[in-house]
Amino acid sequence: MAQKGNLMTVRRDVRVVDATLRDGGLVNDFKFTDEFVNALYRANVAAGVDYMEFGYKASKELFDVNKFGKWKFCDEESIRGIVGENNSEMKIAVMADVGRCDYKTDIIPKFESVIDLVRVATYIHQMPSAIEMIEDAKAKGYEVTCNIMAISKVRESDLEQALEMLGQSHVDGVYLVDSYGSLYPEQTRTLSEQYVAFGEKYGKFIGIHAHNNQQLAFANTIEALANGVSYLDATMNGMGRGCGNCSMELLLSFLKNPRYNVYPVFRFLQNEMLALRESGLTWGYDIPYLLTGKLNQHPAAAIAAMKEKRTDYAQLYTELLDHD
Amino acid sequence: MAQKGNLMTVRRDVRVVDATLRDGGLVNDFKFTDEFVNALYRANVAAGVDYMEFGYKASKELFDVNKFGKWKFCDEESIRGIVGENNSEMKIAVMADVGRCDYKTDIIPKFESVIDLVRVATYIHQMPSAIEMIEDAKAKGYEVTCNIMAISKVRESDLEQALEMLGQSHVDGVYLVDSYGSLYPEQTRTLSEQYVAFGEKYGKFIGIHAHNNQQLAFANTIEALANGVSYLDATMNGMGRGCGNCSMELLLSFLKNPRYNVYPVFRFLQNEMLALRESGLTWGYDIPYLLTGKLNQHPAAAIAAMKEKRTDYAQLYTELLDHD
Repeated sequence: MAQKGNLMTVRRDVRVVDATLRDGGLVNDFKFTDEFVNALYRANVAAGVDYMEFGYKASKELFDVNKFGKWKFCDEESIRGIVGENNSEMKIAVMADVGRCDYKTDIIPKFESVIDLVRVATYIHQMPSAIEMIEDAKAKGYEVTCNIMAISKVRESDLEQALEMLGQSHVDGVYLVDSYGSLYPEQTRTLSEQYVAFGEKYGKFIGIHAHNNQQLAFANTIEALANGVSYLDATMNGMGRGCGNCSMELLLSFLKNPRYNVYPVFRFLQNEMLALRESGLTWGYDIPYLLTGKLNQHPAAAIAAMKEKRTDYAQLYTELLDHD
Repeated sequence: MAQKGNLMTVRRDVRVVDATLRDGGLVNDFKFTDEFVNALYRANVAAGVDYMEFGYKASKELFDVNKFGKWKFCDEESIRGIVGENNSEMKIAVMADVGRCDYKTDIIPKFESVIDLVRVATYIHQMPSAIEMIEDAKAKGYEVTCNIMAISKVRESDLEQALEMLGQSHVDGVYLVDSYGSLYPEQTRTLSEQYVAFGEKYGKFIGIHAHNNQQLAFANTIEALANGVSYLDATMNGMGRGCGNCSMELLLSFLKNPRYNVYPVFRFLQNEMLALRESGLTWGYDIPYLLTGKLNQHPAAAIAAMKEKRTDYAQLYTELLDHD
């Protein structure tokens, strides 16, 4: 497939999605202050970001509301407390995990909600449940994506079938998700071509959500972009689970469309993100994350090693080899 | 040009060059302990690294030997103090900067030296001097590369002419050097194709030396590799001027040739590199470096800002805009 666009021009299909609260919330159990969330909302609007994801629609049966900040649940009133009627051009997104969400009751009809986009996150073996959630959210009036996680562990024939199921559904877009941060740009290129060919066949847009275990989150994101992927996830200073995501400051520095403006992002980083770091929260490239990324494993063991402040990398590597 | 090799196979032309002492020396004025350098030498040999660059052959007329560690000068006896006769398969490299080196006297005949490779670093406007240095080192019996720096600011027609001059010389290899860390993988691809086409025409190998201002040093390195570049520079934990280089641990985790072994690198990181960090040395991705990378500027202003511990990124950005 030929490259789409080049470094001098603008692709009108591109959408930037800020996932700071949702993926970053996995770092601090979603305990962001209202001041932080307000500032993030204003920075995103000023920067021309297209969507801001506020968090998860997690089940209050499964998760204790006292143990997590409110952005794990994203009640309608919580979001409205920040955005009011959202009189901006930026759209509001939430994520709903298959099997961890009471979507029938917790996702209300669109005409009553300030949310625009529901992102259904699923593992590939949960596709039938994902399709049910997708159709529920579409019937309620939302824009809907399906984010197939941990794609680096998925067999091509299973992916082909999952995409076929999504092609028959009313989903608007499908995400390529490198949950383990283990994809190299060569693999991102091949996968992007597969997703984009599917998207062109069925009229669905394609997105990418990358992790930075091998310092490739930004590289994979712009590689996918060059191959026709249009919805690009990023987070402020790359904040996200484990080693984090594609950094918003890198992505907006790269994009040439004058609708994007990286200056408010730099202001947000200095005013808000530095304080999060100083409060003791950690994310970003570090050796334990590289190890799980290289081994194509879930980052859980790396996150545990970081919590224990382990720096015996060689020993950790041999332990992780036994997980294979 | 078609991709060379793939993710399952091995490219026999690949050579890994450890530049930790040389580029990392720009962080600490080359003041590494002998214990560190010894451990690095042993780790590189154990990891299967092909070349270890010990530092610069800097002029003692121009630079005060009391202000810098010995690896800025790389006297023969300094290197022999670490490697003896270098009874290993790994080769020894040094860098010689055009205009900052007394190469006629300081680079001794190869038969008297344990050095194998002289890397001549030059800006494009210094090509005639570079050619003189190259021919001097070749006549003395060394393997020689020419590292054309700051390529992201060079006009294509000038580069074409510089490569033509090198084609007529006895140089063995030519390096693509992204001194400002401003190249995107798309640009690295195009430049690699140009360098590799030149290399195939004149029988020269091509190398890449990347910087990490935009978290793209590793991505650009493997992108160049996929396009036929074979000499790959990396440093331990990415240590290098400003935001540093392609990380050795990432590169060796990526390469599939069983001659490489990343395990000794992890051991070196835990035993030696962590202590350098704890001693207060800083390198790696940070916003000031992104700013100069994005703006395709020399990192000097970013390094100064980091030294002053500036975190007023938005203000810094507007100041840097005025440098353009």
